[in-house]
Amino acid sequence: MADHVVRFTESGKNVQVPTGSLLSEAARLAGEEIGQPCGGQGRCGRCLVRVEQGTVRSRSSLRIALEDQQAGYVLACQAVVEGDVQVSVPEQEKIERRLTTDRTAQEVGVPVGYQYPRDQTVWRLHVSLKPPDMDDQTDDWSRLQNALRQQHGITILNISLNLLRKIGKVLRTGEWQVTAIVEYQKGEEFRLIDLIPKHVADSQPLWGTAIDIGTTTVTLWLVNLLNGEVAAQVAEYNGQIARGEDVISRIIFASKNNGGQILQDLVLETINSLIERACKRAGIQPETIYKASLAGNSTMMHLLLGIPAESIRLSPFITAVNQPPLMRAVEVGLQLHPEASVDCLPGVASYVGADITAGVLASGMDDSEAIRLFLDVGTNGEIVLGSREWLVTCACSAGPAFEGAGVQDGMRATKGAIEEVWVNTNTFEPTYRVIGGGKPRGVCGSGLISLLAELFLTGVIDKSGNFNLELGTPRVRNGEHGPEYVLAWAEESSHGNDIVITHVDIDNLIRAKAAIYAGFTILADSVGVSLEMAEDVLVGGSFGKYINVEKAVQIGLLPDKPWEQFKFLGNTAVRGAYLALLDRKMRARIAAIAGRMTYLELSADNTFYEAFTSALFLPHTDLSRFPSVADAFALPHV
Amino acid sequence: MADHVVRFTESGKNVQVPTGSLLSEAARLAGEEIGQPCGGQGRCGRCLVRVEQGTVRSRSSLRIALEDQQAGYVLACQAVVEGDVQVSVPEQEKIERRLTTDRTAQEVGVPVGYQYPRDQTVWRLHVSLKPPDMDDQTDDWSRLQNALRQQHGITILNISLNLLRKIGKVLRTGEWQVTAIVEYQKGEEFRLIDLIPKHVADSQPLWGTAIDIGTTTVTLWLVNLLNGEVAAQVAEYNGQIARGEDVISRIIFASKNNGGQILQDLVLETINSLIERACKRAGIQPETIYKASLAGNSTMMHLLLGIPAESIRLSPFITAVNQPPLMRAVEVGLQLHPEASVDCLPGVASYVGADITAGVLASGMDDSEAIRLFLDVGTNGEIVLGSREWLVTCACSAGPAFEGAGVQDGMRATKGAIEEVWVNTNTFEPTYRVIGGGKPRGVCGSGLISLLAELFLTGVIDKSGNFNLELGTPRVRNGEHGPEYVLAWAEESSHGNDIVITHVDIDNLIRAKAAIYAGFTILADSVGVSLEMAEDVLVGGSFGKYINVEKAVQIGLLPDKPWEQFKFLGNTAVRGAYLALLDRKMRARIAAIAGRMTYLELSADNTFYEAFTSALFLPHTDLSRFPSVADAFALPHV
Repeated sequence: MADHVVRFTESGKNVQVPTGSLLSEAARLAGEEIGQPCGGQGRCGRCLVRVEQGTVRSRSSLRIALEDQQAGYVLACQAVVEGDVQVSVPEQEKIERRLTTDRTAQEVGVPVGYQYPRDQTVWRLHVSLKPPDMDDQTDDWSRLQNALRQQHGITILNISLNLLRKIGKVLRTGEWQVTAIVEYQKGEEFRLIDLIPKHVADSQPLWGTAIDIGTTTVTLWLVNLLNGEVAAQVAEYNGQIARGEDVISRIIFASKNNGGQILQDLVLETINSLIERACKRAGIQPETIYKASLAGNSTMMHLLLGIPAESIRLSPFITAVNQPPLMRAVEVGLQLHPEASVDCLPGVASYVGADITAGVLASGMDDSEAIRLFLDVGTNGEIVLGSREWLVTCACSAGPAFEGAGVQDGMRATKGAIEEVWVNTNTFEPTYRVIGGGKPRGVCGSGLISLLAELFLTGVIDKSGNFNLELGTPRVRNGEHGPEYVLAWAEESSHGNDIVITHVDIDNLIRAKAAIYAGFTILADSVGVSLEMAEDVLVGGSFGKYINVEKAVQIGLLPDKPWEQFKFLGNTAVRGAYLALLDRKMRARIAAIAGRMTYLELSADNTFYEAFTSALFLPHTDLSRFPSVADAFALPHV
Repeated sequence: MADHVVRFTESGKNVQVPTGSLLSEAARLAGEEIGQPCGGQGRCGRCLVRVEQGTVRSRSSLRIALEDQQAGYVLACQAVVEGDVQVSVPEQEKIERRLTTDRTAQEVGVPVGYQYPRDQTVWRLHVSLKPPDMDDQTDDWSRLQNALRQQHGITILNISLNLLRKIGKVLRTGEWQVTAIVEYQKGEEFRLIDLIPKHVADSQPLWGTAIDIGTTTVTLWLVNLLNGEVAAQVAEYNGQIARGEDVISRIIFASKNNGGQILQDLVLETINSLIERACKRAGIQPETIYKASLAGNSTMMHLLLGIPAESIRLSPFITAVNQPPLMRAVEVGLQLHPEASVDCLPGVASYVGADITAGVLASGMDDSEAIRLFLDVGTNGEIVLGSREWLVTCACSAGPAFEGAGVQDGMRATKGAIEEVWVNTNTFEPTYRVIGGGKPRGVCGSGLISLLAELFLTGVIDKSGNFNLELGTPRVRNGEHGPEYVLAWAEESSHGNDIVITHVDIDNLIRAKAAIYAGFTILADSVGVSLEMAEDVLVGGSFGKYINVEKAVQIGLLPDKPWEQFKFLGNTAVRGAYLALLDRKMRARIAAIAGRMTYLELSADNTFYEAFTSALFLPHTDLSRFPSVADAFALPHV
């Protein structure tokens, strides 16, 4: 077989590979840093490269916008070398912005009044020891404990066998001047995390990490524990996606053969590659990270820890553990310092996990005098209602419709997705906005909400979601799966097919929004308050950041409140983990939140089905709950 | 190559092996249980078998008495098959009695007043849980904790990740009726060791193990924690012997390449094979042992735990750790229940380890009103002097002469060893007793002490150990290495060579006894008491069990006290570990002993060399210290 030269523009490196090699293989040989979290399945899009000279045979253009394809972009894991080529590798960050659901970087502020020595559980202490001699033959470990007691007041210090094995050498290499990393545990107890020869300068950072393990996306912040500064924020698709899009399918996968091990390995790979990436960006070694705080839903937590999750899925829906004990990185499999403390934040129930308790902390609602409503819509919709006095919570099995799944032309909120739609009241012709500009490839969650609202307000569909086939527009037609509305004609789309929303899609969307709205109703009823009494609605998750609130209200997904009462907080889970990482009082608050929350199991609630069916209309059976929507209807009739 | 049939008498099994195969290989193929702790080096003698029909070519008869050789006994690991043979495999226990240094089984009494629920740290608790339902979705781990709190008053319970992974399944398999094994830790804290589906009957034993890791021999007791009964006592040569006979050579071996790992693996193999053997004897599974208490000298402890021991050997002789924390079996590598608690008992210094603290507990001297002297002679001689009020200790580098090493015809106290000698005052002809009867192969420690005393009292050697060459007996002659005494002529010995004691041997023995006696002197002087004030002398270790006290006094090894003041306690280390295993108050007493003991570093003591040189005579420069020896000399002169 003939060999071809593959040249990489930025690094100037050349490699020779035989005909038929994948570009990703050539990149590996050349030592180029190319992400491949999906394992080379052409799924995640992270290995995007641009062919600048020569051509390759590409087996898949999934995830690449048409104009990017025309500009020479290919997935390295799907592109076959058949001649000499020159390839440009974009910076990973640019790909991220192009592909992950977080479309803008989130601003992170150091918590007000953060003071390392007072708030932190991880301490870095200088220790000066008197060397042993014939008159003082105290053993190394006692000598170290004595010095820490005398010099820093630490009376009880725990140590692992692994560390016991190295302290003798460290003490002697450092000539009895060492730096101890210790973690406060409880009571008078501390634990030795590491011992470093010589004194580390006080100006050197001390590293920790806050991680949110989402079903879809894993987010990691690298944090300097001394001052709270975030040195790197990275995110990546959860490597488990290939084994199921939602928690239920993951649990089923995990319960078969060694599926649990496979899923555990996949998410560990994702997290460890994020750790590596963040460390590279900050120019540090992963072994210098001494603490991790983890948020994530209960299923993600179980799968990460290798704990069977089967009982989460089956009635009566029981987790093995809501409050995992403090663990060490080496036990969990995280590639930090092996003795680093791993703090899995506490959850409340099978479907209200640590992502929600951390989110509530980040939202501040647990310390609010006024009643507030917190909502995190992902694959599930979790809702919390309450204040400083009380907190109630529930989870709605909304399904992934608002993430673009289960909808014919649905897609995630990435380049090529229609994110906003307007429909002309008279002609029923649509106008839309596409993420990243260019031709559309599908419709993402915010686009679906917008479209549903527009179709409803313009009378294309009625309050039950049924199409009006008498409008005389070619946009409404009978398609393969029944009535449908054409949002983009084939020639307007990037893939050359019509982009439509079908009656089935609309049914799915209405059921999803009804599940969430019924959740609001049940929560409010359970404590005898009305939704109007909630001072504001705090929306967590990336989902909330891009939806048109007015339209979400118009379809009855969100309660009818003035738009200024909606606050979009972004990824509250990672922010809560960050606060818990920095401040032991914040960590205690999350534990208190988990302890205080009353969980309502909707599937056990007789009134849920009633509330759900009442919400299976646009916006709702009871229009008095949506006065602003009634007004919107009134307008054209004037 | 021709094949031959090897038939095993007891099992009736046949195997075919080619010419030149080892018998041990044939045994392995036939599934015969043959011990090979030395790894097939013909060293340990544990693979002793008897050839009943046919012949084999044996490459070594080391360790086999002549009459056993004549009866067809061979070492399977050294015997080559060259024709059809029939082989009998003796029961392992019989080999043990034949080979290990413990010549009699030690009687073990359950401690007076032992009460499981009051004294034990490991508890077995029945727990009945209310199954979860839609009204009570408490997570499994909280549910278990709640039940243990309500039903058994346990408020704080720690758990490992490994156990968290299985509790869900155990609770459901047991239909919410389970047995918890917990260990008390400290304060209000307990740790979950295991969870078993269904209730285990109260009549079932609950297992623990007490282990003494000797430099030469590892001893293990399998103990029912409910009533203190010892179900099995097993012992085995420490597999590390092949890598060095004493602690110093082991430390040197450990510090080179991956020597530490090799030694750790070897001792773990020894212990794990003992665990297996004890369990087989008791008919139980190793996974049902929930706690181990370990005694052993400081070097053995470091090597077991994989902690570098180099600093023990080098001035100022520092251990990495004297009081290892509680560990789990899986961390240490012991094949018990993986979560079993491993309690390494505390030591005092580099050369006064947990074998001595445990020994002091077993001797009871720490609770004695009278002053007592405790002595454990092995490769080192450790001495403790004291009472309820105070304890001082030191270690004497006696060297292994009393274990038969470093002496031309020295050997361990096994079959074929001369253990007692009498020399005729007029003819200087010896009479001796051989362990196991039959022809002698060498002289063990007690034989050497006896011989030295006899030669001294009969004037064959003077008080400096020099031979009197003018006696006119052929027994005293100039040999290859200078003057020597012939204890057995070639035709009387099992190997057909003369058995002698040389001037060099005698020098070595005198230096060894001088080191120990100097230890007595320094200890007593350091606290300003005389040895006469010690009410008795407690001798630990198997060494002490067989020596002739009178003769040990005559050579100046032991202080000159009436024989009824000497008490021989056997293996005090394993007995101390056994007490600590059973009773938390006993364990606390060992910690108190370790804390109370004042350690005298003899190599830093200016008076030690003086005391040592004064003791380089038989029995001592100062004969007033040995009035009974003066009397013995007086007798023949009357």
